[in-house]
Amino acid sequence: MRLQAEVLVLRGDIAESRHRVHCAVVDGAGRVLAASERADQVTSFRSSAKPFQLLPFVERGHADRLRCSEAELAIMTASHSGSRAHLALVRGLLERIGHTERDLACGYHDPMDAESLEDVRRDPASKTALYNNCSGKHAGMLAMAKAEGWPSAGYERATHPLQQLLRATVADCCGVAADSILLGVDGCSVPVFGLPLAAMARGYARLAGAMAQGGGDERAQALRRIGRAMVAEPVVVEGEGRLATDLMLAARGRIVAKSGAEGLLLVAEPGPGSGTHPGRGIAIKCEDGAMRALGPVAVELLLTLGVLTAGEAETLAIHRRPPLHDAAGHPVGWLEGRVRETVSTSDSAREPR
Amino acid sequence: MRLQAEVLVLRGDIAESRHRVHCAVVDGAGRVLAASERADQVTSFRSSAKPFQLLPFVERGHADRLRCSEAELAIMTASHSGSRAHLALVRGLLERIGHTERDLACGYHDPMDAESLEDVRRDPASKTALYNNCSGKHAGMLAMAKAEGWPSAGYERATHPLQQLLRATVADCCGVAADSILLGVDGCSVPVFGLPLAAMARGYARLAGAMAQGGGDERAQALRRIGRAMVAEPVVVEGEGRLATDLMLAARGRIVAKSGAEGLLLVAEPGPGSGTHPGRGIAIKCEDGAMRALGPVAVELLLTLGVLTAGEAETLAIHRRPPLHDAAGHPVGWLEGRVRETVSTSDSAREPR
Repeated sequence: MRLQAEVLVLRGDIAESRHRVHCAVVDGAGRVLAASERADQVTSFRSSAKPFQLLPFVERGHADRLRCSEAELAIMTASHSGSRAHLALVRGLLERIGHTERDLACGYHDPMDAESLEDVRRDPASKTALYNNCSGKHAGMLAMAKAEGWPSAGYERATHPLQQLLRATVADCCGVAADSILLGVDGCSVPVFGLPLAAMARGYARLAGAMAQGGGDERAQALRRIGRAMVAEPVVVEGEGRLATDLMLAARGRIVAKSGAEGLLLVAEPGPGSGTHPGRGIAIKCEDGAMRALGPVAVELLLTLGVLTAGEAETLAIHRRPPLHDAAGHPVGWLEGRVRETVSTSDSAREPR
Repeated sequence: MRLQAEVLVLRGDIAESRHRVHCAVVDGAGRVLAASERADQVTSFRSSAKPFQLLPFVERGHADRLRCSEAELAIMTASHSGSRAHLALVRGLLERIGHTERDLACGYHDPMDAESLEDVRRDPASKTALYNNCSGKHAGMLAMAKAEGWPSAGYERATHPLQQLLRATVADCCGVAADSILLGVDGCSVPVFGLPLAAMARGYARLAGAMAQGGGDERAQALRRIGRAMVAEPVVVEGEGRLATDLMLAARGRIVAKSGAEGLLLVAEPGPGSGTHPGRGIAIKCEDGAMRALGPVAVELLLTLGVLTAGEAETLAIHRRPPLHDAAGHPVGWLEGRVRETVSTSDSAREPR
């Protein structure tokens, strides 16, 4: 199946801008069920890689030994809003492993949470790396380094054994060779992974497959535990009003959703699937990196694919059709996602290149 | 000549996002000299229409009667940063016509200027429509309504005689029928005009042509005066460090540049031109509306077209190749504009449709 997806920016009678969107849908066996043009193009996995960056920590039993709660697993996969509740989870983890926020390499940025933003404006000295949306992931990385007996200093560098393990883990889950993964530096200073969009969808299909079934190997069990923690704690994974959180809430436990910077969204649906290989992984990338286009296209695509019902999509109106306002507050337009399914000439399922 | 333009977002080894860019170059006779695909597509003129929105006020002699300075003409075409100097110009205009900031329909938004942003944070009660980047244009609209004896109330509405005159003026300058111009509401609550990108370039070619020659009819003389005011006061037109301002400063008086929201930039170059129809107009639109892609592609295109020299382009490095940083402040990538000229099959100049 061939997919065509775009988002129009509509202002009165004028379609003033257009976002092109690439996407891929992969089944539990790693086969591409549907894809847009350029679904094989390499882009960066950004924060959507977080479930796999947490995987070795769970798989090797460290999360059990540290008695991590589901909320703590969720915060380690999170791009959180920096709310007080988010910060408390990260602080709790750091205390248990004998680290402080000064050991986080992620740097500070303003929190999205309004209450926390007022906190740091009132007290600028309180601006620490704890507020970084990736601070939970970084706490998890410090916990992993400690558990493995690796130095904590430099844990964020591509040459550190932790980062090399994470690159290999992402490669395995997404079905690509580790040395084919391109490297860059993420917004939080750790390595970011460059791989085809369809391969990212394959990684989430594997996550979905693990969640759909019992048993399996240690990797499958760890993926299942991570996925279930994310489903159990959607507000921890991003935050109130955020896209991935609201998608998970709307789907009431049926999907894992995780966004990434530069217009990326990944979804794992353990749901229907097919026979021995249940589950679907869905990858969405706005070609131009626009975050504003992600909601409109994600809701349309998930509706088209039957992941969301029409009723559920209606509850997501603010993401599906976000209004534009002028500076005086009048509504003057909106964003609109458009998704078309067409039967391509080679309609049979095929391996992603 | 066929143009291909795009901007890549490069992070380490990964090209993580891509902006497609449409553009058109038109000569003083209104002929398309070079264009990308989709240069005929309709989009909104946004703030790049401002020189034409000021035109009737100058053409009808009102600017003379009000003894407007070049800086005052420039602020009426501006998308200003809200600096104290910008605000003083708008305040001065309003006082002379017996209006106050309460009569501006444009609404408040935070100023881009750092000093002014601190001012309003310190004193939230001082947040008025004066800070809106379009407040100079609105002051000009109020001045026009007063000079013509039209009601000032509702001056921002599409049905007001002022807005109907402005639509007809834009249509004439850009060589399209007034009733073919699509309407929406701009970010500052006045009508915004939807027309083909190549027609916008034609409007700026007309501005360039008027600036290149002496004499001409009242429209040409008024356009010349507006263009020269913008060239004389580049920091008034946008602000310190802003793209259009820096382009005008780099070109040392040879061009008018004016950006618009949603990734738009228009340039008028009175310069070389050809024989009886001197001047060129250049329109650039990031398909997806991204402002971040505008600098990289604008500098490359103006270099390719010979509008800027290599030395001038080098002084624009921060716009041409803006760096990406992680939250800890390390450089992790950059944006890169790419422009290619290819000889199309129909290489002869043609009228824009």
